[in-house]
Amino acid sequence: METYQFPGSAALFKRAAKVIPCGVYGHFSPAPCVPADAYPFFASRANGSRFWDVDGNEFIDYMCAYGPMILGYGNPVVDEAFRAQMNQADSCSLASPKMVELAEYLVNLIPIANWAFFAKNGADITNFAVMIARAATGRKKIIAIRGGYHGTSPWMQAPGHHGVTEEDQENIVRVPWNDIAALEAVFDRHPGDVAGFISTPYHHPVFADNEMPAEGYWQKVQALLRKHGAVFIIDDVRCGFRLHMGGSCEYFGFKPDLICFCKAIANGYPISALVGVEALKNTAAKVFHTGSYWFSAGPMAAALACLKELKRLDAPEILRAIGRKLNEGMVAIAKSHGYDLKVTGDPGMAYYRITDDPTLMLHQQWCAECTRRGAFFTSHHNWFVSTAHSDKDIQQTWDICDDAFKAIKS
Amino acid sequence: METYQFPGSAALFKRAAKVIPCGVYGHFSPAPCVPADAYPFFASRANGSRFWDVDGNEFIDYMCAYGPMILGYGNPVVDEAFRAQMNQADSCSLASPKMVELAEYLVNLIPIANWAFFAKNGADITNFAVMIARAATGRKKIIAIRGGYHGTSPWMQAPGHHGVTEEDQENIVRVPWNDIAALEAVFDRHPGDVAGFISTPYHHPVFADNEMPAEGYWQKVQALLRKHGAVFIIDDVRCGFRLHMGGSCEYFGFKPDLICFCKAIANGYPISALVGVEALKNTAAKVFHTGSYWFSAGPMAAALACLKELKRLDAPEILRAIGRKLNEGMVAIAKSHGYDLKVTGDPGMAYYRITDDPTLMLHQQWCAECTRRGAFFTSHHNWFVSTAHSDKDIQQTWDICDDAFKAIKS
Repeated sequence: METYQFPGSAALFKRAAKVIPCGVYGHFSPAPCVPADAYPFFASRANGSRFWDVDGNEFIDYMCAYGPMILGYGNPVVDEAFRAQMNQADSCSLASPKMVELAEYLVNLIPIANWAFFAKNGADITNFAVMIARAATGRKKIIAIRGGYHGTSPWMQAPGHHGVTEEDQENIVRVPWNDIAALEAVFDRHPGDVAGFISTPYHHPVFADNEMPAEGYWQKVQALLRKHGAVFIIDDVRCGFRLHMGGSCEYFGFKPDLICFCKAIANGYPISALVGVEALKNTAAKVFHTGSYWFSAGPMAAALACLKELKRLDAPEILRAIGRKLNEGMVAIAKSHGYDLKVTGDPGMAYYRITDDPTLMLHQQWCAECTRRGAFFTSHHNWFVSTAHSDKDIQQTWDICDDAFKAIKS
Repeated sequence: METYQFPGSAALFKRAAKVIPCGVYGHFSPAPCVPADAYPFFASRANGSRFWDVDGNEFIDYMCAYGPMILGYGNPVVDEAFRAQMNQADSCSLASPKMVELAEYLVNLIPIANWAFFAKNGADITNFAVMIARAATGRKKIIAIRGGYHGTSPWMQAPGHHGVTEEDQENIVRVPWNDIAALEAVFDRHPGDVAGFISTPYHHPVFADNEMPAEGYWQKVQALLRKHGAVFIIDDVRCGFRLHMGGSCEYFGFKPDLICFCKAIANGYPISALVGVEALKNTAAKVFHTGSYWFSAGPMAAALACLKELKRLDAPEILRAIGRKLNEGMVAIAKSHGYDLKVTGDPGMAYYRITDDPTLMLHQQWCAECTRRGAFFTSHHNWFVSTAHSDKDIQQTWDICDDAFKAIKS
C-alpha cells in the first residue's frame, strides 16, 4: 500500500512556527502526533467524510474537526441554509429572527429546555452556566470531575497550568468520575456552599479509556443535587446530538438544569448554545454575558438546518451503527495480528487503545501508519464518525488498518 | 417626515422573551433603547451602510454591528474571499494555510507584532493576554482601568455583578483613566506582584463622555511598566484598525507588549487575534488556550481580505474624515435648535451627549426620534461609521437629526 509524504505540510509548519506560538496551538497542535513525519499539518480542501492536505493527499477523516463535522463536510442542506441567510444578513446591529426560530426549535427539541442562549465557544457557555449557578444560589463552590474538560478558561484548567492562579481554582472542587461517595463528601465538607456540579454525560478524557456512567449513577447524582439545591450542569459540547437529539441526558435517563451545546450543533459553523429549565430563566437574564459576533445570523440558520437534518435522519442511531460496524471490524483485524484493541465510549465517538502498551508507543505507531495510508487518526483523543462515512469508507479504513498492523510488526 | 412603526419587531420580541433570557441579551439588549416603541429589535437584511428591520423599515446604520462592520455590509471584496475559502474548507481536522498567511500579514502590518494567535471572541484574547502576563512574570495582579470593558469573563466584570465571586476579582486592581499617580501607587502597594496592565487605547465607557489619553500619558505608562517588568496589554477590540492600521498604539505613539484585536478585523466574520512581542512568544506557547471553531478557515480568509482592503483604502483616515463631517454637521444642527451636543472620542466612533440633560432623558428622546426616522442610533454607547457611509447618507442623517430636534421641542 502506498504511503504518503508531507513536504508541503512540513514547509508550511516551518513558516507557521515563526509567526504563531507553537506553530499550530491548542487541540490542533500536532505535538501529540508522533512520529511527526507521519502526519499532515494543514488541510486545503474537505468534502463529505474526507479532506485533502496541502500535499494533495486524501484522507478518510475520523476526527471530524474534533466533533463539529457530523453530517459530512460541505453538507448541501446546511450550507444552502447558511448561504441563504448570509445573502440577507449576518453580523448586524440588531438580532435576527433566526435567533428566535432557533431558540423555539431547541425548546421543542430538548425536553428539559424552556429557554436557549447563544454564543460562539463551548467555554462561553460552560462559563455562563457556572455564573448562573452562582447567581441562582448565592453560593460559590462548583464541583467538577477530575480529568474533565470544559474549555480553557482559568477556572476550568487543571490546577498548576501556565497562567492559572490559585484564586482561579479556589472555588472548584474535583471528584473522581462515577463516585457518589466522593460527591456526598463535598456537600459535607462545604455545607450550604455548593452552587453547582458540572460534568460531561460520560467521561471522555484524553490519554485514557473513556468511561460510561455506572448503573444508577446519574439518578443518584440528580437526587443529591436536588436535595442540596445545587444546579446540575451537563457539558454536552462533545457528545451533544451524537448520543440523543434531546440531549445526552435523555440517552442516560436523567434531567439536568442546564445543558451546554456546541461542536455538532451546526456542522462546523461557529455557534454554541446553553439551554435551561424555567426556574433558572430569570437568573440567566441577570448575568451579563455577551460577545462581538454572538448575534450573527448565518451560523444560527446553519444550526437550525443542521438540527432538523440530524432529526430527520435520526443521526444518533446512524452514528452508533456506523461506529459499531467500524469498531467491530477494527478489533477483529487487530486480533488477527495478535493485538488487543480496546474500544471505549459511545461507538460513534470511540476511544481506541492497544492494550499491553504501557508507553503508548505501539498505539501511536499504529495510528501514524494508518494516517500515512489515508485514514486520519490521532492517538489519544476519541475519534468521531459522521453520517457521511460510507460502507466504502469503512472497508477502505479496515484495509488501511490491516496494512498498518503489518507495518508495525515488521 | 414620516416616522416608522415596528409591529413586526414587537411581535417577534414577544416570542423571543418566551424562549430566550431577556428576549435579546448582552450588548444587543434593547433595554437601554428608550422609549421601546421607537426602536426596531430585529433586522432581516443589510447592505452597505444600511439595514432593513423585519417591518421593512430602512435605516442608515451608525452602530455598524457595534463595531465589526467597517467596510459596509456585504462588502464584495471580503465576501468573495470568504466564499472562495468556504468552497474549499472551513472547520476541518487540520489548520488551514490561511492561518499562516494571516499571521504573516499581521506580523508585517503591526510594528510591535512578532507573532499572532487567533480565537473567536474579544474575551478569548483578553483572557489569554492576562494568562500570558501571569505566566511570563510568575505574578498575579492585573491593573485595569475603572469603568473599562474587556469582555464578560468573571474577572473582567465590575465587582458585585451577578455570578461574579470575590475570588474572581481578587487579583484585579482598578485605577482611574489618565491617572499616573494611581498607577504608581499600585506598584507601591503590590511590590513585585503586578503581572500586567490592561487598557483600551483611549477610554470609551458607556453612559459617559469618552476620554483621550492626556499628553504624555501612554509614554509614562510604558516607562512605568517596563521599569517594574509588568506586561503591557492593549485591548484594541473596539478601536483596532479604526484609529491606525498598525494598532491604535501607533496612533498615540507607544509600544505595548500585547494587542487584542477583534470586531473590525474581518468586517463581521467571527475571528479575534492576539499579537505580541518576541519576548512573550514562548510563554504564549505554554499557556493552553483553544476553542471548537478557532481553526475555521473562512473567517481567516475574510480577515486577510478585510485588512488588505482597509490598508489599500487607508480606512482610518477615511473613517475620521466621514466622522468629522458627520459630527460637525450634527453639532451645528443641534446648535441651531438651541442644544449643545458634546462629541467625544475618535471622530469615526464618537460618543454623543446633549449637555444640560442630567437625567439623559432628552438625549434618549432625541436618539429615539432619529431612529424613528431612519438613522439608527443608540443612546449611551459610542457610534461607528464605515467606509460605506456616503455623503448622501450624511446629508440624509442631518435632515433626520434636524427633524428629530424639532420633534423633541414640540
